Amino acid sequence: DVSFDPKEHQHLRYNPLRDSWVLVSAHRMKRPWAGQVEKPPEEHIPRFDPQNPLCPGNTRANGEINPNYDSTFVFENDFPALQPDAPDPGSDQHPLFQSKAARGVCKVMCFHPWSDITLPFMKTPEVVKVIDKWAELVEELGSTYPWVQIFENKGAVMGCSNPHPHCQVWASSFLPNEPALSDRCQRAYHQKHGEPMLLQYARQEAEKKERVVVQSSHWLAVVPYWATWPYQTLLLPRRHVLRINDLTAEEREDLAGIMKRLLTKYDNLFEVSFPYSMGWHGAPTGPHLKEDNSHWQLHAHYYPPLLRSATVKKFMVGYEMLAQEQRDLTPEQAAEKLRDLPEEHYKSREE
Amino acid sequence: DVSFDPKEHQHLRYNPLRDSWVLVSAHRMKRPWAGQVEKPPEEHIPRFDPQNPLCPGNTRANGEINPNYDSTFVFENDFPALQPDAPDPGSDQHPLFQSKAARGVCKVMCFHPWSDITLPFMKTPEVVKVIDKWAELVEELGSTYPWVQIFENKGAVMGCSNPHPHCQVWASSFLPNEPALSDRCQRAYHQKHGEPMLLQYARQEAEKKERVVVQSSHWLAVVPYWATWPYQTLLLPRRHVLRINDLTAEEREDLAGIMKRLLTKYDNLFEVSFPYSMGWHGAPTGPHLKEDNSHWQLHAHYYPPLLRSATVKKFMVGYEMLAQEQRDLTPEQAAEKLRDLPEEHYKSREE
Ligand SMILES: O=P(O)(O)O[C@H]1O[C@H](CO)[C@@H](O)[C@H](O)[C@H]1O
Ligand SMILES: O=P(O)(O)O[C@H]1O[C@H](CO)[C@@H](O)[C@H](O)[C@H]1O
Repeated sequence: DVSFDPKEHQHLRYNPLRDSWVLVSAHRMKRPWAGQVEKPPEEHIPRFDPQNPLCPGNTRANGEINPNYDSTFVFENDFPALQPDAPDPGSDQHPLFQSKAARGVCKVMCFHPWSDITLPFMKTPEVVKVIDKWAELVEELGSTYPWVQIFENKGAVMGCSNPHPHCQVWASSFLPNEPALSDRCQRAYHQKHGEPMLLQYARQEAEKKERVVVQSSHWLAVVPYWATWPYQTLLLPRRHVLRINDLTAEEREDLAGIMKRLLTKYDNLFEVSFPYSMGWHGAPTGPHLKEDNSHWQLHAHYYPPLLRSATVKKFMVGYEMLAQEQRDLTPEQAAEKLRDLPEEHYKSREE
Repeated sequence: DVSFDPKEHQHLRYNPLRDSWVLVSAHRMKRPWAGQVEKPPEEHIPRFDPQNPLCPGNTRANGEINPNYDSTFVFENDFPALQPDAPDPGSDQHPLFQSKAARGVCKVMCFHPWSDITLPFMKTPEVVKVIDKWAELVEELGSTYPWVQIFENKGAVMGCSNPHPHCQVWASSFLPNEPALSDRCQRAYHQKHGEPMLLQYARQEAEKKERVVVQSSHWLAVVPYWATWPYQTLLLPRRHVLRINDLTAEEREDLAGIMKRLLTKYDNLFEVSFPYSMGWHGAPTGPHLKEDNSHWQLHAHYYPPLLRSATVKKFMVGYEMLAQEQRDLTPEQAAEKLRDLPEEHYKSREE
């Protein structure tokens, strides 16, 4: 009988945040790739482009002029998916044709006045300003909206249409599917095991070490045991923290540092400005501020699409859409690769 | 007070097959697109390419030689994600580090000996042969495996690395996430309403008509009320059918016809060989053959990525990955566009 080797033998792993399974078939990395290759990202981005609606001093689609900002800058998305005043579709519906009102706001947040800089190249105090602004927006929008989703799409391959460093903040009158599922899972775990799931998880991973990518005194970044994207990571505080606005000044400074280190490793992996979608999940807000949310633990998800190189991504298509997510290397292999990369950015070495 | 208009006012719609919600923000189609454009698919594919491992008479990666097939041809995937004999990872696990054995087989099925043909151009009896082979594989693999996933990834943008018309069939020792969820939802609906969900749904849609794309005596293709992809469709039999191998000869012939019509409309939409992932869901098999599965109704999902043109797709990224799926036109708008397209293929008109 052959003994089980996760790198050789396909198996399923359980994702306790989504109550679902991922198929790990690491031996698939051996197959040759003859499929689509992506265009590598544009290398020469001008620091200031008079046509770019995100640059300081430029005019946006609605005619507004951006201030000459020198740090972060937040404005309302000119083409928002959520608006504050949409009418209610009305009730009295057939069970197969159900709709509900959706209200909210969509904001865009520039990280820096320069278009040719990214988070790993920003100074720590500049990244702290980004974190402070995130906290401020969660505080402000979360005073009424039940969910405030901070997310960043980076890179053209992730549908990002503007190279200027920025993220988005969409606040909604409803708890979206993903946080609703995560809320259910964390609540059930807390009830059963008497401890917040992700607090216990961070402690376990810090001990086991094999999936840790970077750590600091207050934070831990791991390729989670149940990662679906090839180099997916989960960024966790070591202390029990419900929401990003609950972070202390020291924790924010430390977060800026670990984000810079993680993103530098990402860039170094395939020597390219690494594309990803990332976002924060914390305890729900608005009407939920009054409830007990001690089962929640703040965390950020990074979902990068690249698999083999700067231009070959993982396709989450047929089998993944219709049946189940499938990955082609083990989370431990991914963590080891990232962990072993230098913390100096490949671009700094080039200069 | 403004009255609700689904084309102007964002709202949520309920997906009863997945017990989740989709955000419909149709006014977003107004925003300009400056992001990534895809390479249009290769126009000049040779009918026979001596290097293509899917062509008749050619040698594959493992040294096997394909027969000179003249209809469908099925073989084992040379780089399978599922193998029949993987060892068990073992039990006795921490609740946050759970794994399970996964076993199965992965097959590839060529639709036709020519690389330069697609389903809409194949003759009806040739498409019937594809359907018969699907039914045969479900019968054969389903005698032991609980789930047999038939799926087709079409187009480079959907991760398809070979232009030869083909699909894949992955049978697994486990019920994957998506069918497990769909099973739960259909079972609960059946228990509550006394009728299979999708049988009732097909009848309702045939009456309402606004989301119907094509219909025939035995089949109906609609843009479902809860569609997430811009031009997603759901293909449904009108009779209660559990599995593809339960279809009568007449229903198969009729299915071949409606598939050709639907796929011709897809190609006509942006005058391009339309990319998509599609797959069949029917009642589970193997050990489930002995159970009551009357809540199930056979159906096919088509998930095409294109949104605006032959080269601009919908990106399911940041907000969609972290919070909730969002669409930019209403399902009714999508259905109307598809319905109004001619049933003659744009390429036949060109000739
Ligand atoms: O086996 P293929 O066609 O090479 O691979 C394609 O389909 C698979 C099943 O959907 C995916 O896991 C792969 O990411 C994709 O590239
Ligand atoms: O608003 P953006 O950045 O133009 O749009 C991008 O992010 C959105 C939120 O994830 C997605 O819905 C869009 O498909 C994507 O292109």
